[in-house]
Amino acid sequence: MSDKAKQLTEELYKLTREITVLNSCQAILDWDERTYMPPNGSENRANQAALLAGMVHDKFTSPHIGEIINDLVYAGIDPEADSFDSANLREIKRAYDKAVKVPKSLVEELSRTITLGQRAWQEAREKSDFPAFQPWMEKIVKLKRQQAEAVGYKGVPYNAMLDDFEPGASTEHIAKVFAGLRDELVKLLTKIRESGIEPDRSIILRDYPVERQRQFGTDAAKSIGFNFESGRLDETVHPFCTGFGPGDIRITTRYDKNHFPQAFFGILHEAGHGIYEQGLPAENYGTPCGESASLGIHESQSRMWENMVGRSKSFWQHFFPKAQKAFPEALSGVSIDQFHFAVNDVRSSYIRVEADEATYNLHILLRFEMESAFFNGDIEVADVPALWSEKFEKYFGIKPDNDKVGCLQDVHWSAGLIGYFPTYTLGNLFAAQFFAKAKEDLGDLDSQFAAGDFKPLFGWLRENIHSYGQRYRADDLVEKITGKPLTHQPLMEYLNGKYGELYKL
Amino acid sequence: MSDKAKQLTEELYKLTREITVLNSCQAILDWDERTYMPPNGSENRANQAALLAGMVHDKFTSPHIGEIINDLVYAGIDPEADSFDSANLREIKRAYDKAVKVPKSLVEELSRTITLGQRAWQEAREKSDFPAFQPWMEKIVKLKRQQAEAVGYKGVPYNAMLDDFEPGASTEHIAKVFAGLRDELVKLLTKIRESGIEPDRSIILRDYPVERQRQFGTDAAKSIGFNFESGRLDETVHPFCTGFGPGDIRITTRYDKNHFPQAFFGILHEAGHGIYEQGLPAENYGTPCGESASLGIHESQSRMWENMVGRSKSFWQHFFPKAQKAFPEALSGVSIDQFHFAVNDVRSSYIRVEADEATYNLHILLRFEMESAFFNGDIEVADVPALWSEKFEKYFGIKPDNDKVGCLQDVHWSAGLIGYFPTYTLGNLFAAQFFAKAKEDLGDLDSQFAAGDFKPLFGWLRENIHSYGQRYRADDLVEKITGKPLTHQPLMEYLNGKYGELYKL
Repeated sequence: MSDKAKQLTEELYKLTREITVLNSCQAILDWDERTYMPPNGSENRANQAALLAGMVHDKFTSPHIGEIINDLVYAGIDPEADSFDSANLREIKRAYDKAVKVPKSLVEELSRTITLGQRAWQEAREKSDFPAFQPWMEKIVKLKRQQAEAVGYKGVPYNAMLDDFEPGASTEHIAKVFAGLRDELVKLLTKIRESGIEPDRSIILRDYPVERQRQFGTDAAKSIGFNFESGRLDETVHPFCTGFGPGDIRITTRYDKNHFPQAFFGILHEAGHGIYEQGLPAENYGTPCGESASLGIHESQSRMWENMVGRSKSFWQHFFPKAQKAFPEALSGVSIDQFHFAVNDVRSSYIRVEADEATYNLHILLRFEMESAFFNGDIEVADVPALWSEKFEKYFGIKPDNDKVGCLQDVHWSAGLIGYFPTYTLGNLFAAQFFAKAKEDLGDLDSQFAAGDFKPLFGWLRENIHSYGQRYRADDLVEKITGKPLTHQPLMEYLNGKYGELYKL
Repeated sequence: MSDKAKQLTEELYKLTREITVLNSCQAILDWDERTYMPPNGSENRANQAALLAGMVHDKFTSPHIGEIINDLVYAGIDPEADSFDSANLREIKRAYDKAVKVPKSLVEELSRTITLGQRAWQEAREKSDFPAFQPWMEKIVKLKRQQAEAVGYKGVPYNAMLDDFEPGASTEHIAKVFAGLRDELVKLLTKIRESGIEPDRSIILRDYPVERQRQFGTDAAKSIGFNFESGRLDETVHPFCTGFGPGDIRITTRYDKNHFPQAFFGILHEAGHGIYEQGLPAENYGTPCGESASLGIHESQSRMWENMVGRSKSFWQHFFPKAQKAFPEALSGVSIDQFHFAVNDVRSSYIRVEADEATYNLHILLRFEMESAFFNGDIEVADVPALWSEKFEKYFGIKPDNDKVGCLQDVHWSAGLIGYFPTYTLGNLFAAQFFAKAKEDLGDLDSQFAAGDFKPLFGWLRENIHSYGQRYRADDLVEKITGKPLTHQPLMEYLNGKYGELYKL
């Protein structure tokens, strides 16, 4: 790299680092709002958040950043070359080009509409009244379409939405992978339903005192590698993971005294996110290569630790005796097989966030099909409830009674988060494909888990995924690591194998 | 006010509001750092704090603010007139003039020196080695003297230091008030020592389970008027009160299972600060009239609730039966008189922060005499330890064995906080003078407290003090409320009365 290019790069990073630090201040405000802020603090909190958001926007869209980007390209830095600096330029350019293309008036109108739209959605959901929400949803879709037109896209408009959460993803590719998954999943679920077998769910619904759940979950999160010197675990209504830079990554959970899996697998899930954030290269902090690759890759980390590790038999070979000690009232006389089956119970249900590991993906496929269709104009927003019911019955074999447990259950559309849903299932697909490769590389993961040794898998993830930040786009990362493009097969092999055994298929 | 002046005023407030909101973001970061931040978060937290501090500084010292101030004065707004807008102009002008007079190089050198100086102080205190700290203290004094010269002062240079914490205060006036206090205090303490009477201190050193202390302290804070819908109570090593704007004022405390007064009176103290902050006029938020008048006035609120209310016999007439229920192990068989005397134990001791209500002020007088002397150049920094011991023996009748329990015990000087100490005793003096007047206005406060009714005093403070913010300077506020300038008499009358009874003087 020429001296000139070096100097420009340093200048660019100085600016992005400052923006990152300012963003991280806002993340602290947000964490505080969701954990400890007293009720009357919300009005001023909104002012604080708006001020910082405006400052971040002004700093990031300053023409000076655009000039440096152009100068760097002119100085011969190829954004598509394989290096940290090139990847940083590629991602900064991508974000900058998008940010300056959207008129401020549209950003503001979207922000206002979403605030009001979410309020309307809450009321509509309460009353299970889709028509009350419909005009808001139509307006949000219209504005997001304007945003898509402003930033531009290849293929269908929905691709512009995907790009915000899963850079480089396309509807066409996702639809192909999801279609293969859907057919096999529906087959598996039919077989499970017809097996007539089910676990004793009552085991996990007994009395699990919250204080002991907290300790047990904290110990498990530590065991798999979440570092509490660089993080915390708190309680919130809606669990999440957030990070304020290297050394301070926080997760939250929600405890239910009579539902063991909720907090426990929630903690493993958020710890998986947290472990990823804690493993991002600190030396790249403040540049894209110090940030997570995509929402799908992020989700692959949480799902792998929650499900592929946390719901495995070998995991419980290590943890079940500890669980029996911690919760003798609930677990004395219960066998590990009974417990393991109970935390892997599969059944059709209406609510996505309560779904098991297998049915979960069908919830997502349905949403992906719906939102790509109404966003691309293939169906009208008004058609959503009827089409939802129709598809739901086809995939799950049951039909929702009302919109509250149907198309009004999720916050995403009212929050303008169109294009977000697919990243959940992409996460599961990435996770399965990574996990299969990790097994190839690391040998018998099951005996390692049974011995409470999670370091080999942890180290493998650090080396192959965490340490790169955004150096590779998600799809390229999958190919680089596994040698193959993303397919549905590893996930289906994993699910068929696991449930084949449990349900004797 | 002319239309032009109105418009300029609005523009000025818009800017100060933005600065206030940005400052409040930093206050959240600071609160988080002291309560919940994981250990490895500190490096990035320093970057975040520095970035926000720099932004606040740049915004506040922008020439645009200076222009508006000048235009307002030119438009005929008199900063000394008796109105909220005039007071705001007076205080913004005062802060702006000071901020732009100090060269950035000096601000930065001070900041660096203080960071290193505090580290040196910690080590020196550990080893009780004043000479190891002396060069740092000399450098800090030298730089603070340069700061005093840059901002200017009337009378002695130390007045410039006072002005940062107690606007409008002068060494001459404080010295006069303090001298009267010192002579009478020394007399009172001698009489107490010679009385041969002392309470049974063991009562308050028994087993007080922390969880019940938390509940008992929270209930008491609520009773006196701290609003938990607009605030919180958390735990920290060094208790404090902080605020992020109307509706979000937070206090902290530290529990010692075997020392009841530490957390309980600490909570009342911080709740007193918090009640003041919660009572500042929300409609003036973002201007000086939405902020506390001075550190001394702030301290008057915390000390009044902690001592004049919280250590009174009538307070315990209401709370002692509750305390006996909460702490039966410690308090069954104890009489209210025994308990009340135990929490009002007076004795000479070396450490300021552990001192009782009466000796506390002597600790402050000594520090005020020392720091005004070395700052004005009347003594050398090198003379501090010897002079400290000499004065200490004269006032307390005992002599510290080493500098660790002598002149090295406090963080203030190493943190550059010269001029801060007197505000503690000013707080006690203001509190006593206010409290005497409140008694005049409100009748029998004691029977109100005994009935658990703190609303009349709370309302009186809201009306006479909290609602004004910085509209009146501290000394003017005292005269406005009590009709007299600040003197030492109300505090001595209060102390002589209280201890006269307890020690049968």
